[in-house]
Amino acid sequence: MTRSCCLFAAAVSLLVTGSTAAAANTPRDAVRSWRVAHDHQILADFSAFLAMPNVATTLADVDANARYISRQLEARGFRTELLRAAPGTPATVFADRSTPGARRTVLFYAHYDGQPVGQKGWLSPPFTPTLRTAPPASAVADPTAPLDPDARLFARGAGDDKASIMVMLAALDALKASGVSPTVNIKLLYEGEEEQGSPHFAAIVRAHRKSLRSDLLVMGDGPMHQSGRQAINGGNRGITSFVATAFGPAKPLHDGHYGSWAPSPAVMAADLVMQLRDDDGHIKIPGIYDDVTPVSVATRAAIDAMPPVEADLKKALLLGRNVGPARLADGYMIPTLNIRAIHAGDDGPNAANAIATEATVSVDFRLAPGETPAHVKTLTEAYLATRGWTIIHAMPDDATRLAHPKVLRLDWEAGGAVATMTPLDTPAALAVAASLERTTGTPVIKLPIVGASSGFAEVVDALHAPMVGVSIANYDDNQHARNENLRLGNLWDGIEVYAGLLADLDW
Amino acid sequence: MTRSCCLFAAAVSLLVTGSTAAAANTPRDAVRSWRVAHDHQILADFSAFLAMPNVATTLADVDANARYISRQLEARGFRTELLRAAPGTPATVFADRSTPGARRTVLFYAHYDGQPVGQKGWLSPPFTPTLRTAPPASAVADPTAPLDPDARLFARGAGDDKASIMVMLAALDALKASGVSPTVNIKLLYEGEEEQGSPHFAAIVRAHRKSLRSDLLVMGDGPMHQSGRQAINGGNRGITSFVATAFGPAKPLHDGHYGSWAPSPAVMAADLVMQLRDDDGHIKIPGIYDDVTPVSVATRAAIDAMPPVEADLKKALLLGRNVGPARLADGYMIPTLNIRAIHAGDDGPNAANAIATEATVSVDFRLAPGETPAHVKTLTEAYLATRGWTIIHAMPDDATRLAHPKVLRLDWEAGGAVATMTPLDTPAALAVAASLERTTGTPVIKLPIVGASSGFAEVVDALHAPMVGVSIANYDDNQHARNENLRLGNLWDGIEVYAGLLADLDW
Repeated sequence: MTRSCCLFAAAVSLLVTGSTAAAANTPRDAVRSWRVAHDHQILADFSAFLAMPNVATTLADVDANARYISRQLEARGFRTELLRAAPGTPATVFADRSTPGARRTVLFYAHYDGQPVGQKGWLSPPFTPTLRTAPPASAVADPTAPLDPDARLFARGAGDDKASIMVMLAALDALKASGVSPTVNIKLLYEGEEEQGSPHFAAIVRAHRKSLRSDLLVMGDGPMHQSGRQAINGGNRGITSFVATAFGPAKPLHDGHYGSWAPSPAVMAADLVMQLRDDDGHIKIPGIYDDVTPVSVATRAAIDAMPPVEADLKKALLLGRNVGPARLADGYMIPTLNIRAIHAGDDGPNAANAIATEATVSVDFRLAPGETPAHVKTLTEAYLATRGWTIIHAMPDDATRLAHPKVLRLDWEAGGAVATMTPLDTPAALAVAASLERTTGTPVIKLPIVGASSGFAEVVDALHAPMVGVSIANYDDNQHARNENLRLGNLWDGIEVYAGLLADLDW
Repeated sequence: MTRSCCLFAAAVSLLVTGSTAAAANTPRDAVRSWRVAHDHQILADFSAFLAMPNVATTLADVDANARYISRQLEARGFRTELLRAAPGTPATVFADRSTPGARRTVLFYAHYDGQPVGQKGWLSPPFTPTLRTAPPASAVADPTAPLDPDARLFARGAGDDKASIMVMLAALDALKASGVSPTVNIKLLYEGEEEQGSPHFAAIVRAHRKSLRSDLLVMGDGPMHQSGRQAINGGNRGITSFVATAFGPAKPLHDGHYGSWAPSPAVMAADLVMQLRDDDGHIKIPGIYDDVTPVSVATRAAIDAMPPVEADLKKALLLGRNVGPARLADGYMIPTLNIRAIHAGDDGPNAANAIATEATVSVDFRLAPGETPAHVKTLTEAYLATRGWTIIHAMPDDATRLAHPKVLRLDWEAGGAVATMTPLDTPAALAVAASLERTTGTPVIKLPIVGASSGFAEVVDALHAPMVGVSIANYDDNQHARNENLRLGNLWDGIEVYAGLLADLDW
């Protein structure tokens, strides 16, 4: 049998020799039939995986996840290895499995750790996976009854990013049951501290460059396009972030007696925010847009071809306006300055009419292609100095506080990253798009870069391979927030998409 | 014997007939001797009083305090009554005791409730009164050893405002033990929900106007002048306050994917703050200064005569600058807008890279004489409307959020108050100043109005009596904050001051 470039489209011949699925006419149908027949088992397996706490600040938790994933992959014929940058740090699970006769090697990335879970308002505990009916009702549903594709499984990590790992496991099972062999050598790289800013990931990749060698990196992390249509993307924005602390009086003061005289750190924090950006999202730091790579004609065309989602999004999010560019994807081509948090003073039951001693502002920059964390830091600090701030990087001593009218402590987070953007007309990217179109039967959306950031620029650089993002989680999965969830229909579609990539990629 | 206007100065004759104090030459000396002989007992009694939780949101707690105070006063010959505006609300303790032959009646006000205690960083639990050595060491001290006047008793309410009640009880005991009779009829009014904004106090006063009738109201609440010298004041600023809520997306969003497009409530909150005031304390609401009563020549002279404390304060508070007028007392003659708290997003261990759904800003205005809460509210809302806010006063429905770009919920606190300011050259005020000068032997500082606010304008109005403030707590008592404390020397001096007022007032 000659190798087919389009197994899902026309590989009926394969069924004759290999399929164990009953009434399937094509491998795609076979995968679907298998999934339909096993949906409750897949849901149960995913729930067991999600029940494992995965916040990377607790090493024992993420290590338990890493061992679980390794066992799952070994059972599916993979050689596995736990890669660590140093003892006591979370492991990245590496797994590989050769396909006899394959020309290409594809490295699939996902991460198994999750965001912290302390947000208020979880409908059910974050590590008690709970099936719920379609929103807005979100009532608890029976996981043993027939499964509504609009039902959702609630748990930390459901969408970001254990879903990518679960669909890979199920896709491997579906292909095996269908007697379909992959067309490529498979390598898997499942990180354990992405939500902590991937402090060791690039070092791990550099150290294992040789075994990770591949022709394409498929990035599974991230939500799908809001339209629900399958999309590919060429990479991620970069990131750099800091926590700023403004200092007021050395101890809290009654605001009636001292409010007219003592500087207010709450006001200083608000002032800082409005010095950094305006309400419409424009960043006020001089030079901050100068490094940004101009948008190419091809990128411009890809963005313009994207289906509009903004009107529906506003309605879903109860927004009477948007800030910045009207189109979401346009905003990804420039940097964004986000205020993650601002805090000063007590409110609620602990409210006091006091001037607080400190205020904190948590800031991140999402960096567009062309920008570097180092230059953004330089520009930011130089600008703030012109606004009267004395910038320090540790707790000020008494003499410093007394000597300067406005002292600002900036704690820059380590592990910033530049953006990475693979042009979507490279052969590997075109092959991914073609595979997805064969699986889904609809044109693929091509997003030049996603708004979220990752440390992948260093990784792509180390691997010398193109990267294409293939997301499968519903866009409204509440990632990074309370009530994270995955829509079951996305789980089912994701299995088909990943099975298609494994069985169908060729370039 | 003829009535003396100056018992403490020259009433040696009294000692012949009435004193039981041993080696005392004057009533002041007698009071001091009694206090020195009983200092450990006074400290123990005060500690027992402070051990009673007194946050007025727990009715049972403040009721226990009210009953305790009543028992103490009944034991000292007072008739007592618990005044309530309605069942289930905290009681104001009213007590009176006639003095045979007295022409004048003096009503002493204090409050026995305290601020909430949830602030982090208490050295010892707020209701476990703990004697500590002089700051900055503040080590636990032995309350049975000889007592350093610079030692401090730490507890919620130590300075604000149970101290005023404690010194009254001790002053009554000291005078009795010294055989000195008061010169005035004594009425006491001890409120139980001052720190909740006195929602019922004015109604209670109006309802009992007849029994509260008096010639002078002495206000015990508040800290002393920073110089440590005894002061009087003519009243308090007014107050009005609100909590503002700005709305972002209906659910938290990943700030990488949506930060360039979705409005940020954290930024909206910071923008609101900087629309309301600047970093230097200037309020930006048009017309906000127009109602303020111009400062009279006498008031100007009183302020100018005050000892400078600002340089020492900056040093103690580690401030490299002040905002607003250079002199504290000047700032009290104009309104102040304080940001009590600003909150949006999670930080610390629960940090998430998400756009928050809401942000809150807690604001108070300290009102100068001439201003009214109603007009300030009107000016504020009219101004914010010109800045693009749609002002509402309850949770917005979906249609409201969708229809308006910037929705702002304002929850104005009930029970605002105008300022009250008794001219310090009225006869009763001059009599108080004279008594204090005889007790302390030094000129009294005359502060036209204190920066803090109270609901006393209505009270003063209802009573038709002048009000003079006589504070005894150390200025650095951490009132309204963690580690509230009273300096023992202030407790001792306060007993003498109050004994002097009881035994010495005449006009």
